[in-house]
Amino acid sequence: MKAMIKGVGLTKIDQHWSKSIGELAAEACFKALRDAGNPKIDAIVVGNMMSGLLNGQENLGAHIAESIGMSGIPAIKIEAACGSGGAAVMWGAIGVISGIFRNVLVVGVEKMTDATNTEDQSSALATASDAETELSMGATFAALNAIIMRRYMHEHGLSEEDFSHLPILMHKNAADVEHAQLRYRISLKDYLESPYVCEPLRLLDASPTGDGAAAIIIGEEGDVEIAGFGSSTDLVETFSRDLTELRAVKSAAKKAMEMASIELGDLDIVQIHDAFSVIGYMCVEAIGVVERGKAHKFFESGDAERNGYLPINPEGGLKARGHPVGATGVYQVAEIALQLMERAGPSQVEGARIGLSVNIGGTGSNVTAIVLKR
Amino acid sequence: MKAMIKGVGLTKIDQHWSKSIGELAAEACFKALRDAGNPKIDAIVVGNMMSGLLNGQENLGAHIAESIGMSGIPAIKIEAACGSGGAAVMWGAIGVISGIFRNVLVVGVEKMTDATNTEDQSSALATASDAETELSMGATFAALNAIIMRRYMHEHGLSEEDFSHLPILMHKNAADVEHAQLRYRISLKDYLESPYVCEPLRLLDASPTGDGAAAIIIGEEGDVEIAGFGSSTDLVETFSRDLTELRAVKSAAKKAMEMASIELGDLDIVQIHDAFSVIGYMCVEAIGVVERGKAHKFFESGDAERNGYLPINPEGGLKARGHPVGATGVYQVAEIALQLMERAGPSQVEGARIGLSVNIGGTGSNVTAIVLKR
Repeated sequence: MKAMIKGVGLTKIDQHWSKSIGELAAEACFKALRDAGNPKIDAIVVGNMMSGLLNGQENLGAHIAESIGMSGIPAIKIEAACGSGGAAVMWGAIGVISGIFRNVLVVGVEKMTDATNTEDQSSALATASDAETELSMGATFAALNAIIMRRYMHEHGLSEEDFSHLPILMHKNAADVEHAQLRYRISLKDYLESPYVCEPLRLLDASPTGDGAAAIIIGEEGDVEIAGFGSSTDLVETFSRDLTELRAVKSAAKKAMEMASIELGDLDIVQIHDAFSVIGYMCVEAIGVVERGKAHKFFESGDAERNGYLPINPEGGLKARGHPVGATGVYQVAEIALQLMERAGPSQVEGARIGLSVNIGGTGSNVTAIVLKR
Repeated sequence: MKAMIKGVGLTKIDQHWSKSIGELAAEACFKALRDAGNPKIDAIVVGNMMSGLLNGQENLGAHIAESIGMSGIPAIKIEAACGSGGAAVMWGAIGVISGIFRNVLVVGVEKMTDATNTEDQSSALATASDAETELSMGATFAALNAIIMRRYMHEHGLSEEDFSHLPILMHKNAADVEHAQLRYRISLKDYLESPYVCEPLRLLDASPTGDGAAAIIIGEEGDVEIAGFGSSTDLVETFSRDLTELRAVKSAAKKAMEMASIELGDLDIVQIHDAFSVIGYMCVEAIGVVERGKAHKFFESGDAERNGYLPINPEGGLKARGHPVGATGVYQVAEIALQLMERAGPSQVEGARIGLSVNIGGTGSNVTAIVLKR
């Protein structure tokens, strides 16, 4: 059985203080259902990381089923840290491929601004790291990524300025995208003047916190095929790994492309997981687009632009479209689907037929890659 | 493709203060892997509800993969409140049926005693109820179930004593089961003298909190077939439903039996979700074993005993074997598998060939039923 995408629905990523997590998810689900012509849904797979910690709501599958008037059908939540959305898409596709379900509604949702202060958000995010050796030592995600960035600079002889190319392009891309969170351009001056979150990592290296939901309907028929997927884990503790290589990205992307019978050169568009500039760089390197340590040149050259050699994140990526953690992987897949259906509006990449999305959990420990084909 | 169980591993349910959640899960996984002859595992599906809230550890799939030296393969956590374990088994089976994975390791784990006080446990458990209309009003799970019990007594004219039959049988069953948490018998006098947690619900109506992990290996070949499964959701908020009927149990059990091409009379053994005595009663009624309001008679008659007409929870059920929330659904399936393989030791039901397990999330809002056949 094939797994096809037959409908897509996105909410704007924002601070949705007036909406509960169920209402936010419902907005994306209703849009996707309408887009797909309201097929009968047989199961719901939710991608989410922190609803228990930030919203006091587990049992999230049943809660969202209820929020869209579909109580009765099977509904689960899948958690794989910041890679929850990608994992939900993959398992939703498996549900259809198995022949057990005809139509699966996959919805990624995260409501991060419910937390009363940023410390709560940081603590919740830190549960994606190792509880005993990282979280308990007070290592926030920004701190871990600052260490990765420092090491990457050391190994490849980079300056801080070299990291500006990714956020500048992401903000440029997001500026005309309706569902994006940060719709404004930034300059090199803005980047260099933005405060350190954790030296050398600046505010403009970091993706924002926000609330958002993205939904897709996967069925046996549709416009875009989920032609391949691959998922890989790696050691959770950052310091147990080579700090500057995303092994699980390399392996997951390889598996997904093999399953889809494509090669790197076949890709028309790629969604990378740029939670921080350095992770975005390491991501394109792990996929094989450029050699290790050369990503800044790739972004500087214009090759990653919408009309470039290999467009990366034409909707602005995690940095500027936004990164509502458990929803991100579904946004990535939904955006590629819209591109392949030629419905991406101002961010449209001309003639895109094959796309790859890479969604990362932790600092590189739980990755799902998905290949879509028109 | 068929989904078969080829290995089982259980930890004793206890207060495992010296073990992290990863170490606890690993113990069950290693036992299951050895039992299955150490096959190559292609994916890990974890059933767990509260690792973020109680153990500060999300990204639990990658964490458990690392704990057993299997970093690299896909690994996710599935959350469906107290029904997480059953949902993990179902999706693990779907993974094999799809042909995507040859061998899936399903492990349910919950480490509840990490919480520093019972209030933290109660708050974490309450995230299975509706955050806006139940949790925020201070309704604990014991409180919600006490209200259900009061209504059930009112509708069916029952006394408090009528609820004693289930816990007395469960404690009797657990007494000789090695992995059970509460291995002692209780008398009617013990029951009636046990304190109210929330009137009319007594301490001896409630399943204990504990730490435990259960693992099974699902593959294309094995001794016991996962012949059918069904999952149903219902409204999360208790008061939106008929308080004394578990509609989602009725529907999920029906789907699972239809998929397995069996009828109620074919069952040799049933695992019910007796988180509280009244839920155990409503569960056997929803499956169709007895009419509504008659479950107490069924348990009083001896029909539910190991050598009775239809043995229920021969290992002591949630009440006495224990209820490590997200692990429970995997314990239930593993126990039936051991029964069908004639490896259940003192709890063995003679000649058992077909079994049904029912795992409930919330107060009846997320249910997975699974039929196993020898």
